Amino acid sequence: ERALPQIFQYVDQNVESYKNLLKEAVAIPSVSSDAKHRDDCVRMVEWMKEKLKEVGATTELRDIGFQTLEGKQVKLPPVLVGVLGNDTNKNTICIYGHLDVQPALKSDGWASEPFELVERDGKLFGRGSTDDKGPVLGWLHAINAYKNVGSELPVNLKFVFECMEESSSQGLDELLMEKLKPEGFFDTVDYVCISDNYWLGTTKPCITYGLRGISYYFLEIECAKMDLHSGVFGGTVHEAMSDLIYLMDKLVDKDGKILITDIYKSVAPLLETEKQLYNTIDFDPEAYRKSIDAYKLPHNAVKEQLLMHRWRYPSLSLHGIEGAHYQTGAKTVIPGKVVGKFSIRIVPNQEPEEVEKLVFDYINKKWAERGSPNKMSISAQSGRAWTEDPDHPHYQAAARATKLIYQTEPDMSREGGSIPVTITLQEASGKNVLLLPMGAGDDMAHSQNEKINVRNYIEGIKLFAAYLYEVGKLPK
Amino acid sequence: ERALPQIFQYVDQNVESYKNLLKEAVAIPSVSSDAKHRDDCVRMVEWMKEKLKEVGATTELRDIGFQTLEGKQVKLPPVLVGVLGNDTNKNTICIYGHLDVQPALKSDGWASEPFELVERDGKLFGRGSTDDKGPVLGWLHAINAYKNVGSELPVNLKFVFECMEESSSQGLDELLMEKLKPEGFFDTVDYVCISDNYWLGTTKPCITYGLRGISYYFLEIECAKMDLHSGVFGGTVHEAMSDLIYLMDKLVDKDGKILITDIYKSVAPLLETEKQLYNTIDFDPEAYRKSIDAYKLPHNAVKEQLLMHRWRYPSLSLHGIEGAHYQTGAKTVIPGKVVGKFSIRIVPNQEPEEVEKLVFDYINKKWAERGSPNKMSISAQSGRAWTEDPDHPHYQAAARATKLIYQTEPDMSREGGSIPVTITLQEASGKNVLLLPMGAGDDMAHSQNEKINVRNYIEGIKLFAAYLYEVGKLPK
Ligand SMILES: [Zn+2]
Ligand SMILES: [Zn+2]
Ligand SMILES: [Zn+2]
Ligand SMILES: [Zn+2]
Repeated sequence: ERALPQIFQYVDQNVESYKNLLKEAVAIPSVSSDAKHRDDCVRMVEWMKEKLKEVGATTELRDIGFQTLEGKQVKLPPVLVGVLGNDTNKNTICIYGHLDVQPALKSDGWASEPFELVERDGKLFGRGSTDDKGPVLGWLHAINAYKNVGSELPVNLKFVFECMEESSSQGLDELLMEKLKPEGFFDTVDYVCISDNYWLGTTKPCITYGLRGISYYFLEIECAKMDLHSGVFGGTVHEAMSDLIYLMDKLVDKDGKILITDIYKSVAPLLETEKQLYNTIDFDPEAYRKSIDAYKLPHNAVKEQLLMHRWRYPSLSLHGIEGAHYQTGAKTVIPGKVVGKFSIRIVPNQEPEEVEKLVFDYINKKWAERGSPNKMSISAQSGRAWTEDPDHPHYQAAARATKLIYQTEPDMSREGGSIPVTITLQEASGKNVLLLPMGAGDDMAHSQNEKINVRNYIEGIKLFAAYLYEVGKLPK
Repeated sequence: ERALPQIFQYVDQNVESYKNLLKEAVAIPSVSSDAKHRDDCVRMVEWMKEKLKEVGATTELRDIGFQTLEGKQVKLPPVLVGVLGNDTNKNTICIYGHLDVQPALKSDGWASEPFELVERDGKLFGRGSTDDKGPVLGWLHAINAYKNVGSELPVNLKFVFECMEESSSQGLDELLMEKLKPEGFFDTVDYVCISDNYWLGTTKPCITYGLRGISYYFLEIECAKMDLHSGVFGGTVHEAMSDLIYLMDKLVDKDGKILITDIYKSVAPLLETEKQLYNTIDFDPEAYRKSIDAYKLPHNAVKEQLLMHRWRYPSLSLHGIEGAHYQTGAKTVIPGKVVGKFSIRIVPNQEPEEVEKLVFDYINKKWAERGSPNKMSISAQSGRAWTEDPDHPHYQAAARATKLIYQTEPDMSREGGSIPVTITLQEASGKNVLLLPMGAGDDMAHSQNEKINVRNYIEGIKLFAAYLYEVGKLPK
């Protein structure tokens, strides 16, 4: 117990070096969705491998094969697998994180270069600062702090750091289930921890025990084998765009209610006990509204309703259209083939196969009603929702660590997004999985001007150190 | 009259050099909508200036100022203005053409590099081959042929070749109306001729006496000041996309009927005399359907109905959405601001201001019905429809020239697209304007694999020579 105050002091003395290391990591544009940046992804993984080796871990880069990207066979970046400590008297935590990032261009509306970490008003702006390079480095700094104050690590650690998370974690499930698990990697693992999500708001910490799943749809309509000029062809073709817009308009109403037949039927009923959990959660609808500059929130901006629609009810979003005119200006094209993209965030107890069937049936029905001569097809990619028991000792240990750092009881929260690896790690290890967020609710992962607060980054390092300590105390 | 057979023979002997010159012109990627290609546009205009000088024209490059492109002030490419001959006993024709092209990438689905002219099966594939570099060079070759067979040009010529046509002809109207007209450029002009459109089908030539106008709309909806992650925010925002899709779905039905209130009210009534014109037009709906690989044509694929909906009735096309997800893959974004693009091809007697008001009123009404808290705005860019009298002596001269080359009476046709400069040149000159197409109906201007048939290119040069001869015979 004496080690922690020393560690916290050490962390406070090394703020500049933590910022510098994050700056180094952000400067590597490891955008996994873009073949042009594949070398940067590999470089990022190798960079992190060196860092893990410096704190004493044994590491290996695991090859996970190829993907088809932009029509070409492209090698996937390797997964960094590490082991630190093998004391059979200690608990072992498996830590997952990702080193890749979403695309970002300054011209998208960033106030500064996205791949140059810049501090403004106590915030560190840069792509990957909070998703997920900051948290991954947080683990590194926490281990390093134990080492530098001369204190033994209270747990054994195993690491799985991938670089394809923002591109559906391609190749990871196979590595975990078909390689690492049979090899016995998870045999000694007692707990799994992932830091790749955010606080609910901006001031109060939380621990996350549930995630929605996702069911993503590709709705394709073709009216001609090529794009057509609307001056020449307008009025003489059944346009694919108007068919697609018709179908997309049938999916969700203006208040966000999903119109797909029976879609709400299998959603887990809201029990009185669960309902009461929402009352105490720290969440300010007006601050939330202001943070995104929305005009008005749905569900009458009632806190509990907003949280439930974010965590435990499905939602449907229309993302866009591939194949149509998307640039600025006035292009007079009749697109020949368009692909509408939408997704449903699914929840307990919605099974992906069931949801996909409901959507396919509904779209087929609406398409028949439309009576268009064009060609329509729909396909889906889905992943299940996830929940754990927030009363589990692992969660209680994390709650004690959080309280030690932030002097407040953390909210037990869920999240609206999905992190598919959570379920895979639950299955691979058979152990309790916990999400321990470092960043704040306004960090804007995936958006312009992504940031992490200096406070969240630095206190987050201490939180991780305290979490390792608390899990070290759990009975073996 | 003896000159023409000699000229035709000369043209047939110089096919290779005509192809080579078109290859040179296509190789200059003069994409006017892209600031990166602005230097290529300037280079293209200068290249053409040299060619005109070589056939004896006096030329000048007219500066037309700046535009705002991608947020920057960018200089517009100059307009090439030329004069060849000033014999007061001869008629004077003003010829317009454009040297810029639509964007093109091989990855869009071209079978070969778009900016490399390639011959396959008697077709010359390349961006700009038919729109409008082929026709512009056609005039040059026709003049050159007169010169090389030692025959005097039967008319005086004036040229206006711009390089911004595919970008709304920015700066051209001002040059024509506020500079060239006051300077007296049009005082001696007797006729105006434009070759920037296509035959109706693939075998029978036509002369064009009418064009639809266009009214292009930008429908903007904003729900948040930035893009949002659907996992985090889905279910707790009124999404701009679903509002936009709702409004776009209210514009046109599956059969292409425009749903905007009163939009058909001012359309010129179909007279019995006009109706009969359609019967004799050479147009094969099945060949048309096959050329675009459509599943079924609207209007029961009835020839007259298809032609009328292409020429004399308005049509509405949905072009796309700016600000939404448009790439391949599964991006889980909730776009913060989206701009829907659609346009109406307008016809006699629809006035742009009237059409815009009907659209604005209709959208505002549907938006009020929607009851969304988001911010909506709509703006428009419009240009009038155009028609001439196909019985005018100028048209009869062009018809005689066409019959001489193709041994068939040309169809008197209209077009579905708009060429706004047609109206401006009609106003600036006060004279009869004629559209004399060179390319065929399946040339796919603005699409992938744009081409011009070798036959159309070469016979087109002869057609232009014969047209100059026929106009030379019209009484002064
Ligand atoms: Zn992440
Ligand atoms: Zn992410
Ligand atoms: Zn053109
Ligand atoms: Zn064009």
